[in-house]
Amino acid sequence: MTASLIRRAISICNDIKFPAVRASLSIRSNIRGRLIHRNYTVAKEITLTMGDKTLPQIFKFVDQNASSYKNLLKEAVAIPSVSCDIKYRNDCVRMVEWTQEKLKEVGATTQLRDVGYQTIDGQKVKLPPVLVGVLGNDPKKNTICIYGHLDVQPALKSDGWDTEPFELVERNDKLYGRGSTDDKGPVLGWLHAINAYKGIGEELPVNLKFVFECMEESGSEGLDELLMEKLKPEGFFDTVDYVCISDNYWLGTSKPCITYGLRGISYYFLEIECAKMDLHSGVFGGTVHEAMSDLIYLMNQLVDKDGKILITDIYKSVAPLTDTEKKLYSTIDFDTVSYRESIGAHKLAHNGDKEQILMHRWRYPSLSLHGIEGAAFQPGAKTVIPGKVIGKFSIRIVPNQEPEEVEKLVFDYVNKKWAERGSPNKMRITAQSGRAWTENPDHPHYQAAARATRLIYQTEPDMSREGGSIPVTITLQEASGRNVLLLPMGAGDDMAHSQNEKINVRNYIEGIKLFAAYMHEVGKLAK
Amino acid sequence: MTASLIRRAISICNDIKFPAVRASLSIRSNIRGRLIHRNYTVAKEITLTMGDKTLPQIFKFVDQNASSYKNLLKEAVAIPSVSCDIKYRNDCVRMVEWTQEKLKEVGATTQLRDVGYQTIDGQKVKLPPVLVGVLGNDPKKNTICIYGHLDVQPALKSDGWDTEPFELVERNDKLYGRGSTDDKGPVLGWLHAINAYKGIGEELPVNLKFVFECMEESGSEGLDELLMEKLKPEGFFDTVDYVCISDNYWLGTSKPCITYGLRGISYYFLEIECAKMDLHSGVFGGTVHEAMSDLIYLMNQLVDKDGKILITDIYKSVAPLTDTEKKLYSTIDFDTVSYRESIGAHKLAHNGDKEQILMHRWRYPSLSLHGIEGAAFQPGAKTVIPGKVIGKFSIRIVPNQEPEEVEKLVFDYVNKKWAERGSPNKMRITAQSGRAWTENPDHPHYQAAARATRLIYQTEPDMSREGGSIPVTITLQEASGRNVLLLPMGAGDDMAHSQNEKINVRNYIEGIKLFAAYMHEVGKLAK
Repeated sequence: MTASLIRRAISICNDIKFPAVRASLSIRSNIRGRLIHRNYTVAKEITLTMGDKTLPQIFKFVDQNASSYKNLLKEAVAIPSVSCDIKYRNDCVRMVEWTQEKLKEVGATTQLRDVGYQTIDGQKVKLPPVLVGVLGNDPKKNTICIYGHLDVQPALKSDGWDTEPFELVERNDKLYGRGSTDDKGPVLGWLHAINAYKGIGEELPVNLKFVFECMEESGSEGLDELLMEKLKPEGFFDTVDYVCISDNYWLGTSKPCITYGLRGISYYFLEIECAKMDLHSGVFGGTVHEAMSDLIYLMNQLVDKDGKILITDIYKSVAPLTDTEKKLYSTIDFDTVSYRESIGAHKLAHNGDKEQILMHRWRYPSLSLHGIEGAAFQPGAKTVIPGKVIGKFSIRIVPNQEPEEVEKLVFDYVNKKWAERGSPNKMRITAQSGRAWTENPDHPHYQAAARATRLIYQTEPDMSREGGSIPVTITLQEASGRNVLLLPMGAGDDMAHSQNEKINVRNYIEGIKLFAAYMHEVGKLAK
Repeated sequence: MTASLIRRAISICNDIKFPAVRASLSIRSNIRGRLIHRNYTVAKEITLTMGDKTLPQIFKFVDQNASSYKNLLKEAVAIPSVSCDIKYRNDCVRMVEWTQEKLKEVGATTQLRDVGYQTIDGQKVKLPPVLVGVLGNDPKKNTICIYGHLDVQPALKSDGWDTEPFELVERNDKLYGRGSTDDKGPVLGWLHAINAYKGIGEELPVNLKFVFECMEESGSEGLDELLMEKLKPEGFFDTVDYVCISDNYWLGTSKPCITYGLRGISYYFLEIECAKMDLHSGVFGGTVHEAMSDLIYLMNQLVDKDGKILITDIYKSVAPLTDTEKKLYSTIDFDTVSYRESIGAHKLAHNGDKEQILMHRWRYPSLSLHGIEGAAFQPGAKTVIPGKVIGKFSIRIVPNQEPEEVEKLVFDYVNKKWAERGSPNKMRITAQSGRAWTENPDHPHYQAAARATRLIYQTEPDMSREGGSIPVTITLQEASGRNVLLLPMGAGDDMAHSQNEKINVRNYIEGIKLFAAYMHEVGKLAK
C-alpha cells in the first residue's frame, strides 16, 4: 500500500481532532504548578528569572500584545472555513488567502499550491489551495517544517452552542469559537511567535517552512500528492531538519505534554445483501433471509464484552511491553475517576486500572463497532427490511502490527465465520488502513521541546502517545525523513469538533511563548 | 392498551403502503382472463352480457369519461400533500379542501373536522382537518363507510423518479405520479363511481359515509380520537352496515384480490448507553465497555438465520393451522420464482415452498432487525464510539398473539440475555404494539365484493391476507362494530412509497367500475 493510499484511507477518519472529552489530569501538588494553573501572568515573572536573555523579552512582548493576538484569532474564527460543505468552499479559499497575507507580513515568501479537484456526488469541485511558505534560508540554522490546518468542522448555534460559533467570545479566560483550538489558534500561534521575535528586533533562531492546508477535516484531499509528488521532488524538504505539528491537545487540563506516538487504524466495511431493494417487513418478513440478521451475527463475533478482540492471532505481532516502557506509564499522573466521570461511564474497562487504561489507549489495539449503513437510523419505528447493509468497524493498530497483516487476519476470520453461518446472502468485506506512528521521545528534538515546555509551564511535560491518528504525521515523516514531533497548544477539554469549542486564554498566550521558546531551543541544537 | 394507543403505536410504521415489489401472480390460463388482461375494453363488452341492466350503462359511462377521470387524478396528484414535512402542511389542507369540493359536487354533505395539533421538535403544528361526508340517508338502503387518505409520501425527482413526481404522466397505459395509487386514485375512484350513477340518472343503491384523512402516512395523528371520541358518540357509525377501505394492492399484477387479514406488529426500542456522549474511538477505544457491542450481542439473540424467532414461547399462542385454512393456501396462484426474482434474493426462506412462504407472510409471526439509531449510518469511515444506541426490531404478530403477551415474552427474554452478558452499561427496552386483524372471508359482505370483482375482472378474486398492518382497519372495526373489507384498486407492482409510483390505467378505470359494482352488490344485501 502506498503512502498516498494509506493517507487517503485514514485521513477520512476525522481523527485525533475529535477528542470529545479527554482525561483530566490532576494538578501536581507543587506550588509553582498551582500558581501557573491559576494565573498565567505568574509564569512570565518566573521565566524572567531563567535562561536566555532573548526569551524574557519575547514573553513580555507577547503579553503586551495579547489583545492584538486575540483579535487576529477573532478575525480567523469569523471566516467559516468549513471544508466538508462545498457551500463554504469560497470561505476556505478566503481563509487560505487571509493566512497568506499574515505569513507575508511576518516576512515569509509564500505560494498557493493548486491541488486539483475533488468529486462530490459526481460533481468536480475545486479544492482550496495549500499555502506553502519559506522564512529564512540561513545554512547555519536548523530548519523546522511546520504543519497546520485552516479549515474547521461544521458548527451551527442550533447544534447546542451557547454563543455564535463563528464569533470568538471571551468568557472566564476562555476563547470560544469554532477553530479556536482546532487549528486556527495554533497556526496563528506560530505567526505570533515569529512576530514577537521581530517585535523585539531579534532574528529568528531557525529557518521555517510552512505547510498550511484547508482540507484537513475532510480527508486532506490532494495534500499527500502535493507533499510526495511535488514538494519533495522540488527539494522543499531537502533542508528540513525537524517537523513540528501543533494539532492535538494535552492529556488533561493543566499539564502539558509532547506526543511521540499515534495508533494506526484499520477500518472495515462489511457488506451483506439479501435483496436489491429495501423490503417491507410486513410483506416480506418471514420469507427472506434478512441481511441484518447475518450482519449482526458477524459483528457479534468480533469483540467480547471486555473489549478483547476475537480475531484469531490479532495480538500476535503487538510489540511486547518492555520494562523501560512500562515505567513510563507509572509516572504519568492520570486520574481514571475523573476520566470515567467526564464521559459518564458506569465502569471503565480493565477494572479502571490506570496503567492498563493508558496502555489500551496508546499501545494495544482496540476494536470498535461504529454503526450500520443502509439500515434504519432515524428516530421512530421504521419497518423496513434493509436490502443491503454495510457494518462499520475499525481496529486501532499499534506497533508492530502492519495494516496488510491485520487486514488478512480479519478477512480470514470473517470468511470463516461466514462459512459457518451458511447464509444464502452475498457478503463482501473491504478495508482501508494506515500504520501506527511512533518516534523516540529521547531524541534531541523532543528534549528541546521538553526544555521549552518546562520554561513556560514550570513542569516536566508528559511524554504521551495518542490513541487516534493524524495521517499527515506519517506523510511528513516519509517526505522529510526527519524527526516529527507533536507539540500541542490546547487543553484536553477544548472540545474540538464539538459544541462550544474553546481555547483557554492561558493556553493560547503561553502557547505562543512555547512556540517561541521551542524555536529558540531547536536553534541551539547542533546543525 | 386502549384502541387509541394501539393505533398510535402501529400507525407510525408506515405500513402496508410500502409494498416495494409484491409477488407476481401468473395469469390464469383462461381465455377470458387473458383477454381482459390485455385490453380492458374487452371486459366492458363481456360485462354487457351479464347481470344487471344498470351496471352496463355505468361501465359505458365510465369508459366514456375516462379522460376526465384521469384529469381529475392529475389535479389531485399536482397538490404535493406530503404529510410528514410541515412545509407541505398548507398543501395538505388544500388537498382536503379540494376533495371536499369534489365530494360536494357529487351531492354529499361534508364537514372539515378539526383534530388539533401535533408536536414537532417541541413546536405545536396544526393538523390538517379530516374530511367527513354523508351521502344519502334512505333507511331502506345499506350504508357503507368508506375510508381513504389524501396525503402522500415525500417524493423528489432527484430520488430517482423518471418524471416529475407531482405531475401525473401517462406512459404505456400507466399513470405515474406520487399518490396515483396510494391513495388518491382509489379515493377519486369512489367519487367517479358515484358520478357514474348520477351520470346515467340512477340513484345510488347504498347510503355512503366518508372518512378521508390527510395524515395517514404520518401516523394518522388525531384520527383515532376523532373516530372513537367524537364521531362514534355523535352516532356517525350508528347507521353504518359495512366498512370498505381501498388502500392496499393486489398480490400480483393481474389477479384481483380481497383482503380479510392483516398481521399486527410489536415494535421494540432496545437502548444501551455506555457514555453520555459519543466518544472518539482512537482516544477511548480499549478503555470503555462499548454500547454497540452490547447491543449487537443482544440483537444477535433474537432470530436465527432461517428466520426462526428465538424468544422463548413466542410461537405458543399462534393460532393452529386448520385443514380448512390450509386448503385456502393450496389454491392460491402464487409464483415464488418471480417473487424471488422481483426482489433479487438468492434463495427464499422455507426452501421457497409456496404455501410456507404465504403462511409466513400472513399467518405466522416474523422478526425483523431494522437498524440502529445513534450509531454511524453515513457513507464513509466515521470513527466514533456511540455513547447511546437504540436497536430497532419488530415482530409481526398474528392471531391469537396478544400484544401485551408478546411484549412480556420479549422483555423477559431480553432481560435474561442481558443478565447473562454481565455488562456494566445501562439497558432499557420499550415497545409499541398493535393487534392483528382478520375477518371471515365467507361473510356476505365479502361475497358481495367477490361478485363485483368477478363481474369486472372475469376471474375469482383471491381471498388474501397481508403481512403488514393498516391500523385504521381495527379502529373502524371497533368504532362501527361492522364487517370491514379491504378492496384494493391498484396492482402489486405499483411501487407505493417508492420512486415511480403508478397506477395502471386499467386498474384505475376498471377500479371505478369495481367500486360501482361493489355498491350495487352491497345494495342487494339484506338490510
